[in-house]
Amino acid sequence: MTMGGGVMSGISPRDRNFNHLLRKRWEKGFFTCVGLDIDAKKIPQHLLLHNSRGINLHKSTLAFVKGIVEATCDQVCAFKPNFAFNEADGALGLVTLRSIVKLIHTIAPDIPVIVDRKGGDIGNTNLGTAKGVFSYLNADATTVNPYFGGEALEPFLRFEQKGIFVLCRTSNPGAGEFQNLIVEEYDAPVYAVVAQNFSRTWNTNGNCGLVVGATAPEEFTHVRQRAPRLPILIPGVGAQGGDLAASVVAGQTADGDGFIINASRSIIYASSETNYDEAARAEVLKMNNTINAHRIQP
Amino acid sequence: MTMGGGVMSGISPRDRNFNHLLRKRWEKGFFTCVGLDIDAKKIPQHLLLHNSRGINLHKSTLAFVKGIVEATCDQVCAFKPNFAFNEADGALGLVTLRSIVKLIHTIAPDIPVIVDRKGGDIGNTNLGTAKGVFSYLNADATTVNPYFGGEALEPFLRFEQKGIFVLCRTSNPGAGEFQNLIVEEYDAPVYAVVAQNFSRTWNTNGNCGLVVGATAPEEFTHVRQRAPRLPILIPGVGAQGGDLAASVVAGQTADGDGFIINASRSIIYASSETNYDEAARAEVLKMNNTINAHRIQP
Repeated sequence: MTMGGGVMSGISPRDRNFNHLLRKRWEKGFFTCVGLDIDAKKIPQHLLLHNSRGINLHKSTLAFVKGIVEATCDQVCAFKPNFAFNEADGALGLVTLRSIVKLIHTIAPDIPVIVDRKGGDIGNTNLGTAKGVFSYLNADATTVNPYFGGEALEPFLRFEQKGIFVLCRTSNPGAGEFQNLIVEEYDAPVYAVVAQNFSRTWNTNGNCGLVVGATAPEEFTHVRQRAPRLPILIPGVGAQGGDLAASVVAGQTADGDGFIINASRSIIYASSETNYDEAARAEVLKMNNTINAHRIQP
Repeated sequence: MTMGGGVMSGISPRDRNFNHLLRKRWEKGFFTCVGLDIDAKKIPQHLLLHNSRGINLHKSTLAFVKGIVEATCDQVCAFKPNFAFNEADGALGLVTLRSIVKLIHTIAPDIPVIVDRKGGDIGNTNLGTAKGVFSYLNADATTVNPYFGGEALEPFLRFEQKGIFVLCRTSNPGAGEFQNLIVEEYDAPVYAVVAQNFSRTWNTNGNCGLVVGATAPEEFTHVRQRAPRLPILIPGVGAQGGDLAASVVAGQTADGDGFIINASRSIIYASSETNYDEAARAEVLKMNNTINAHRIQP
């Protein structure tokens, strides 16, 4: 199996720029992101390492992630571990998450890592989360919640080498409850106002993106009208049932890029046997074919 | 100094019920919450403990928190440590946060601990955060973000012994950007719809509350119209400049309770000298006087 990522080595943390890394992958035709939502119960049996107290979750998780990253890194544009899955295990979970980021940076230094944290608080407090995500965990990008407004997110946005993906229209069944409320002044839903403000007002460092779920592809039209050029992170294909082809058609920019399609469970748990890595790669290749069949070719 | 909290001992974690603990404190006339936003640079010099590598932040923080909790626990209704301040230090920060909760439960078992996490993701993922906050950290309550809608917050709400405070109108300068947008269908701002839906639809376990900042006291009117009985956690007095008296007048229920006034920096950093604990207590007593002068007496 070809390991595209391993070839390019030695980008020092200081020189890593999320936008540059991402655009290089887009230029090569890669738009798939592998979501690393690690569920200990789903790690293939043969990877479970034991210590005196039972399963060593830290080592087993890293062995699993290593297999996934090595098998897919030459075919993707990003990896996305999820903070909350590790948070369940407290401090040890954070140690594992930090090791996951380090492992990806070592195996595939040209692939950016998005730590899906969905941070959001008042400004003073956001600095704590930003330090945790960017300095402790060494993420290249993260996700944030817009409810506090753009002003509060400045401690994230000022990290100009990092990517900041703002939740816009999420992929869960109840997402519309507040996001789809129609705003009088704009005659448009709340999520469209979010897209507009982060495109026009808050993107002064050029590092903003949006999160728009694949489960509502018609809503990309609203978003792209108001944010024609922002990168869009698109979760919700695969296990969540979103329409991949429709999301590409509606989510891409006029240049046929500007999007990242994330799938988690459908890739990393494609097989629970020893061939889980090959099964994951096959799933990514299938997604890449569909994506490239539906995007505007430059 | 009287230590009211220490008298009542031995509530087993299984029997702790946030609502019961909170109501007992309200019945005794206590509505102040001490926010434990720990900034290592502001810990009084005499509490800084050293090890071979410099300052031992874990031990110094716990010594500081111990002083604050012992000096104030008989005069408050809750303590509120903030996740993000600890997250900045990664795994060690989480170990410290867990120790802070344990310390408060030991010194003052009758005082509930709200871990201010502001969680929010799709349902599947929220379970990770809920486990982290309630099982690993042992919090009695937490804060959550409503952007994903009530459906996604079910993994928090199903912990019926715990309190779930939903961000409604926050206290930061830019809070109105999305929260104050007027919704066509309701002819009311987004935050009022949040208040209404969590009061009428999502509070099936009776454990929902709201977060409404003291910096916008006129907005309590909208909230109380739509959520007449939900407990409101009110941040933003003290360093953030919110009006304490106006918040009590507007935020209380018809029975003169139903609110928690949080102050962080103005209490815990009232003095940077050896008398920091007494200074913190004096600040709490001052708040208590103002609060009780302005609430409806039952």
